[in-house]
Amino acid sequence: MLASQDQSNELGITVKKVNELGYGWVITQHMIDIKRLPQIYERINVITEAASYNRYFCYRDFWITSEDGEELAKMHSVFVLMDQSKRKIARILPELIDPYASEYTKKIERLPEPEKIVADEQVRIKKYQVRFMDIDSNQHVNNAHYFDWMMDVLPADFLMSHSLKKMNIKYKQEVHYDDKVKSSVHIEEEEVIKTVHQIKTEQALCCTAECEWKTNH
Amino acid sequence: MLASQDQSNELGITVKKVNELGYGWVITQHMIDIKRLPQIYERINVITEAASYNRYFCYRDFWITSEDGEELAKMHSVFVLMDQSKRKIARILPELIDPYASEYTKKIERLPEPEKIVADEQVRIKKYQVRFMDIDSNQHVNNAHYFDWMMDVLPADFLMSHSLKKMNIKYKQEVHYDDKVKSSVHIEEEEVIKTVHQIKTEQALCCTAECEWKTNH
Repeated sequence: MLASQDQSNELGITVKKVNELGYGWVITQHMIDIKRLPQIYERINVITEAASYNRYFCYRDFWITSEDGEELAKMHSVFVLMDQSKRKIARILPELIDPYASEYTKKIERLPEPEKIVADEQVRIKKYQVRFMDIDSNQHVNNAHYFDWMMDVLPADFLMSHSLKKMNIKYKQEVHYDDKVKSSVHIEEEEVIKTVHQIKTEQALCCTAECEWKTNH
Repeated sequence: MLASQDQSNELGITVKKVNELGYGWVITQHMIDIKRLPQIYERINVITEAASYNRYFCYRDFWITSEDGEELAKMHSVFVLMDQSKRKIARILPELIDPYASEYTKKIERLPEPEKIVADEQVRIKKYQVRFMDIDSNQHVNNAHYFDWMMDVLPADFLMSHSLKKMNIKYKQEVHYDDKVKSSVHIEEEEVIKTVHQIKTEQALCCTAECEWKTNH
């Protein structure tokens, strides 16, 4: 996210400028593939490209590579522009997208939805209250904190013995300061080790995700 | 803390080595003075020195300076060596202190205790459950997270309108995974704007702190 923000700053599309126009960039989906986690003190490259966009959606790719170019992880992300007073998705403004030299396309990508928790499945639940420091410049919980809630609800021994391979996370509704959220997970330990997550406030299903894991050796 | 860890690694006193001997470095007190917070994208220096030690306590100083040497913040910290199986303070081992070329002294520093919350004072309270990611290599909550709990219990408008000038924080008892903690604060807005904090588990008073603030302009 910082790499993307650095690029925006270099192109003059600062958060401040976007906010002054009454908008904020908001992420609606991340699809993450992890081949190998970096080692402690390893030097890595963080690469990002604003790949393409249509009237409402911008598609951006991210990569983490080792110093000699080995791909460690990649991520495909969907950004939208939010009208900060209406709290609704707005059409992409040319002055906020042109500087990226991203490709315009009429096509709306049909990305897979994360699997959902089914009514009678066994789940683990933890509750969290949104903290002041969870809030970002869009006056809502920053995307990274959903990830914290989704990982923390997993049992400690699962977290110690598994590493994340893939994650598909979709953000549906904003979560605000002081909201109480419920993080639920269903764990499937079959051929593929999978966890299915949801984050709910009292009012709404705010975020769903599906993760694939491998066992640590 | 990372600067101090980097120094330890360079001297061959890695966390791994300390753990293998059955010990862990633990912080018992920080005294922080902040003159000016760094600006976004400002380059800063982080400086640390293992100043002196006696049989049980090591005293370490930290500074943050601007690129041209202006002192932005400084911190005086007390470290002890914890026996990881007994969970008790151990005598400082020569092989773990000699490489720092720190000064040996018989004197035990008498640092001021943070002010305490008095029984009938008005307080704000928030409750937290310790998260998996709060735990460090000593198998207890890392010192940084007490700070999160102490800040988060303050009202959002106080946090938006004030900046931290000084903090004296004293760690008394370990907090563990899944523990429930209660963060309490008493706010004094007189000549000096001061907040007095405590972190309690159901069993014990674990941490106290006293902060001094200035109003943002």
